[in-house]
Amino acid sequence: MSLVVVGSVALDSVETPYGKRDEALGGAATYASCAASLFGEVAMVAVVGSDFPKAYHDKLLQRGICLDGLVVLEGPTFRWTGVYQGDMGVVRTLNTQLGVFESFRPIIPDSLKRPRVVLLESIHPELQLEVLDQMERPELVAMDTIRLWINQKPDKVREVIRRSDLVILNDEEVRSITGENRLVRAAETILSWGPRNVIVKRGEHGASLYGEVGPFSVPSFPTPQVKDPTGAGDSFAGAFLGFLLRGGNLRSAQRIRQAMVVGTVVASFNVEELSIDRLERVTLQEIQERCRFIRESTAFDEVALG
Amino acid sequence: MSLVVVGSVALDSVETPYGKRDEALGGAATYASCAASLFGEVAMVAVVGSDFPKAYHDKLLQRGICLDGLVVLEGPTFRWTGVYQGDMGVVRTLNTQLGVFESFRPIIPDSLKRPRVVLLESIHPELQLEVLDQMERPELVAMDTIRLWINQKPDKVREVIRRSDLVILNDEEVRSITGENRLVRAAETILSWGPRNVIVKRGEHGASLYGEVGPFSVPSFPTPQVKDPTGAGDSFAGAFLGFLLRGGNLRSAQRIRQAMVVGTVVASFNVEELSIDRLERVTLQEIQERCRFIRESTAFDEVALG
Repeated sequence: MSLVVVGSVALDSVETPYGKRDEALGGAATYASCAASLFGEVAMVAVVGSDFPKAYHDKLLQRGICLDGLVVLEGPTFRWTGVYQGDMGVVRTLNTQLGVFESFRPIIPDSLKRPRVVLLESIHPELQLEVLDQMERPELVAMDTIRLWINQKPDKVREVIRRSDLVILNDEEVRSITGENRLVRAAETILSWGPRNVIVKRGEHGASLYGEVGPFSVPSFPTPQVKDPTGAGDSFAGAFLGFLLRGGNLRSAQRIRQAMVVGTVVASFNVEELSIDRLERVTLQEIQERCRFIRESTAFDEVALG
Repeated sequence: MSLVVVGSVALDSVETPYGKRDEALGGAATYASCAASLFGEVAMVAVVGSDFPKAYHDKLLQRGICLDGLVVLEGPTFRWTGVYQGDMGVVRTLNTQLGVFESFRPIIPDSLKRPRVVLLESIHPELQLEVLDQMERPELVAMDTIRLWINQKPDKVREVIRRSDLVILNDEEVRSITGENRLVRAAETILSWGPRNVIVKRGEHGASLYGEVGPFSVPSFPTPQVKDPTGAGDSFAGAFLGFLLRGGNLRSAQRIRQAMVVGTVVASFNVEELSIDRLERVTLQEIQERCRFIRESTAFDEVALG
């Protein structure tokens, strides 16, 4: 298997100014896997409850996602209810029911123990470490986390970071795990802990990569209408890694830069509709067109002075 | 005269984690003019009091800035006292003494009534309009403003915008004048009022241009040490226009894009030291090098999919 994504699969009830949906297919692992599946093979390691709709199971299979690592436990699936208001910059969580996710201990099936790349989505950092312990060291370990774990388990989060090659966090998370307010400094601090590269997701300001092949910055794509920001960061990460794997050499600077753009673009599609609706329909042609748009909106001739 | 800058000249007392300086040469017109003077001729229209140090007057002259429009009135010069703390993202104003600036009514000398470009820095919007009324319509009218005028005189600010070709505001100002939270939408709203282009300064996230020659985005330069952010936006604007004029054709898309980069780079030098200390020493060679760095940190090969 090229890519294994470990994280949550959830039933999301989301309300935005554009609409409302109950118990849609969601969760970090879902968004990341769906985005990665646009470019190649991906397996998901996650847990769902016995009430997980067969239709969603089939949806994931139809995307070509390997579900050998998807465990079904007796009990309810992880449910999340959130509301986005106004410009949807901030989500308000109304309800979180962990269900079977509460006792989730990722068990990596033998067939998934030797991936080229693993993406550790934002589960408890001790579980992220357990995943790594079960695997032969992948060529590339990528990690994400959330504010909750940075606040509650900073040492464990740093341990995961030390064992990762690529850290993918948003600006707020990068600041809080390092205590550095300037993003460049915060990124440098993370790099000093060991990872080869760190990606700082800046929301509507785009994303930046620091480290071995950085600095590299890409603006966000000006999506005409953001209908549901849920999963933007996860679809970025999944597309980034999926695209990178498609190229073969995981350390090609050029390929990594392109992957930043592809991740940005896939995220821009994801937010256009609820759940994975848009990811299910988006074509490589459409992705390529937005990548070209970004290229055109950042290119300039060399400045000659003097 | 190619460029006329109308705005404030002030004596700034600034305290940052890196040091403190009393009554340094400051003010929006100072920063913008000094930045513009790196690239060509510029005149300043402003007012100072009878206590304005001769040394500062000489400093401006040494930069080649035309001071025909600098009025000296009996009374104290505009004084501002501010403190930056921590990462210096936010300034705390301790004291503002308008002095002669309070009764400032810009009088444009005949020799400055036909500039190719005028930069209306953030003075009272009615004064900005008075400046335009005194001039033959310049080829390019650029404007900036501050939150104070947006809050107190939104209609007048919008009138200035309608009479401008280029609006240069930061993200917060763009949001507040339009009531739109998403920057792309906010920029589109401003464009619908008439200007050909709008530049959104995003602080450490860089800057974006929308309109006739946009969208175009440039990341900020990762200045190793920011010592005093005062004047970053003003030096951006001055360098942008100064560089643009140097190229001749003010509507060249390629030149405008390069000007975005040059503005970003000059601002990155400005914040490295207090007052205009760094702008006085920076060389075109140094500016060119940072422009190349930005080019390298945004360039990527076309993405081919499918």
